[in-house]
Amino acid sequence: MSEAIDHTHNPRARSWVQSANSPNTEFPIQNLPLGVFEHGQSPKGRIGVAIGDQVLDIAAALDKGLLPELAEFKAELHMSALNALMTHGRRATRALRHAVFGLLQEGSGHEALALTCLLPMRELRMQVPAHIGDFTDFFTSIHHARRTGELSRPDMPVAANFRHMPIGYHGRASSVVQSGVPCIRPRGQATPSSAAAVAAQEYLPTQALDFELEVGCLIGKGNALGSTVPIDEAEDHMFGLCLVNDWSARDIQGWESYPLGPFLAKSFMTTVSPWLVTLEALAPFRVAAPARTPEDPPLPPVLTSAKHAAVGAISISLEVLLQTAVMREQGLEPVVLTSPQFSEQYWTLTQMLTHHASNGCNLRTGDLLSSGTVSGVERENSGCMVELTTLGKEPLRLPSGETRPFLEDGDVVWLRGVCRRDGYQSIGFGECMGQIKEGR
Amino acid sequence: MSEAIDHTHNPRARSWVQSANSPNTEFPIQNLPLGVFEHGQSPKGRIGVAIGDQVLDIAAALDKGLLPELAEFKAELHMSALNALMTHGRRATRALRHAVFGLLQEGSGHEALALTCLLPMRELRMQVPAHIGDFTDFFTSIHHARRTGELSRPDMPVAANFRHMPIGYHGRASSVVQSGVPCIRPRGQATPSSAAAVAAQEYLPTQALDFELEVGCLIGKGNALGSTVPIDEAEDHMFGLCLVNDWSARDIQGWESYPLGPFLAKSFMTTVSPWLVTLEALAPFRVAAPARTPEDPPLPPVLTSAKHAAVGAISISLEVLLQTAVMREQGLEPVVLTSPQFSEQYWTLTQMLTHHASNGCNLRTGDLLSSGTVSGVERENSGCMVELTTLGKEPLRLPSGETRPFLEDGDVVWLRGVCRRDGYQSIGFGECMGQIKEGR
Repeated sequence: MSEAIDHTHNPRARSWVQSANSPNTEFPIQNLPLGVFEHGQSPKGRIGVAIGDQVLDIAAALDKGLLPELAEFKAELHMSALNALMTHGRRATRALRHAVFGLLQEGSGHEALALTCLLPMRELRMQVPAHIGDFTDFFTSIHHARRTGELSRPDMPVAANFRHMPIGYHGRASSVVQSGVPCIRPRGQATPSSAAAVAAQEYLPTQALDFELEVGCLIGKGNALGSTVPIDEAEDHMFGLCLVNDWSARDIQGWESYPLGPFLAKSFMTTVSPWLVTLEALAPFRVAAPARTPEDPPLPPVLTSAKHAAVGAISISLEVLLQTAVMREQGLEPVVLTSPQFSEQYWTLTQMLTHHASNGCNLRTGDLLSSGTVSGVERENSGCMVELTTLGKEPLRLPSGETRPFLEDGDVVWLRGVCRRDGYQSIGFGECMGQIKEGR
Repeated sequence: MSEAIDHTHNPRARSWVQSANSPNTEFPIQNLPLGVFEHGQSPKGRIGVAIGDQVLDIAAALDKGLLPELAEFKAELHMSALNALMTHGRRATRALRHAVFGLLQEGSGHEALALTCLLPMRELRMQVPAHIGDFTDFFTSIHHARRTGELSRPDMPVAANFRHMPIGYHGRASSVVQSGVPCIRPRGQATPSSAAAVAAQEYLPTQALDFELEVGCLIGKGNALGSTVPIDEAEDHMFGLCLVNDWSARDIQGWESYPLGPFLAKSFMTTVSPWLVTLEALAPFRVAAPARTPEDPPLPPVLTSAKHAAVGAISISLEVLLQTAVMREQGLEPVVLTSPQFSEQYWTLTQMLTHHASNGCNLRTGDLLSSGTVSGVERENSGCMVELTTLGKEPLRLPSGETRPFLEDGDVVWLRGVCRRDGYQSIGFGECMGQIKEGR
């Protein structure tokens, strides 16, 4: 299940792209994530690999004969979305990783020609890297479940089903957007606060706009309708990971969610980071799936295996940063709001995928599975403002002197993620950013 | 908002396709629904219009110069899904209706050539007529809400939010299939019935497999992310209607749904009927939106208008039929289980669409919005078995002597829908069929 750690993970490997050797880069030669960019006047997306502060234009490199090992994927690599490549699954990411590593490492012998295929990342407009068919959002942090549950069901904050399976629900695929797209404050109905409000329910701008810090996985190889995916095969269906901000309107959510779950409280927008970090790049950062405690029921046999127990989780240090309009005016840097660790989720992405297909549901290439809010055991490492501010009752205090029960217009939110391990080069996910804009 | 009733609705209009003049046909010349078929060895879908027991191959008719009025849509009409045509919205369906009506009516003068573009419906394999981006399922029968609510919350069966807005949730688009695809009994977790079941939760075949009788709408023209759709413009975004069977596993649903709603209880499969009945064809069957009673809060201003109040609902007589394997062996005809009327839903499709976009959510061409279970005021007109059998406690008694708390392997379920009005030709939706198969 877990990818072998090979020479492409050697922390001493260096690239002739000097910015990739900086200790602060998120994109050293050990990472090589895939994305889709637009450049200049052309609106046609192109597949790229991030390296330092540059992007390798894969189709250009192929056309110049630089990646002969990838000839069999030539048509797929000339597409403007990753889906065609992704249908080949892990075989494609492995081949791509090794070929691009060979081209970009120091002394590859092709620097001069390859240099003509590099574009400065800051000049590119990154896109959602694949056509997303279905978006499924899970609910897999027990700390998030407990803290949000305490607000509505203090007697039993964690529901009876939580420890038996990864709870999930269908999200909205149409409004999944790339990093940088403004988040327009949605309107909607909230729980009526008075008889007058009951009498003529209005659709007002949400007063409880929140972020949700999540980690998503895009499906590579799909499974047929009616088939299931055993847990030790699940990772063959996972193509790469990204960060996901599942923006949420908590007042709309509180009113609409019974009995069918969140709907318009979420569907106005979801932001994804542009780079897909492959399972191959993540190999050194695999850790044991969370141990069960005496409080937990035994794992369902469908959701466990020896391999999964050993390396089913992924260690990613996550962060959310916030900068308000006043902070920008005052020249204040964005402030870190929270720093949870992804490996502490109660359920792994692998378990989510196997559970998702357990009823025969077909997962298609490009589908997005997301973890749900990633929250640590301590409240200060919560992945959303509902928890950080106890549903707005204890507002955040910012360096500008401002307070925030929830997000305000002009606020900019960034998600970040970095994988670190002693003896290995750190790799990052790039940024997942959005600014709140007033609605019409 | 409502389409004008014009000569294409004249009940005396007849077609030179004789089967279209039969009193029992669902597809008289006043209907002309759109679908996508495969024929013979070719797996490539083609756009067709149903007429009697025949289908007009639209691309063939265009190629033979028979539909010159549709020249501007020529490329779209040669596609193998309806999406490209649907982006043009109601303008396309109006043009198509009038052109095809002119060609197929008695005395059109093109019978000989047009006859070469007809194919017998029974020889065709019908497909899902459009690529469905997102599938949204609603919950808009107050009788369904009340009867299912009584099972879990007898003190307050209809939730506080129900009368304020159409409650909905995101469904699974990947597993929406055409009529005739077998429904493979899904496995999953159910509420553990014993300490042993808690200790090792298994994924067993559902013991509570149900149908849900629904009416769906496919989106024609989309709306941009961040924009809304006023109620008097909502029907400009509706392309056509179909029948939807949202198969459900009630034991899985009962265990997984708190707090995020149904997930694997639904995502294993949803069946749609092959023919899209256009809003134009439905014009004579528009009726007043349901009147509010003194029990109801006033309608939110966003969800009402004078036009909507007058003709916002659609009169469709619905039916579910069942035939078991034993009934087939005994030569017994399928039995009608229920006959609700679609116009009695508490919320209209128009209101669902406007509510869906009220938060700025972008609806895309081809998206499916479905009504949720259509159930009448009397229990015998319920649109699912949970209601008909009170969660299996009062099993259906069949003419074969069998009983059914829920569906069994071998059972075949059909949904039917017909629009009837004095002075007008009746039009039908065709069938939405599926047979239950044992899972692996």
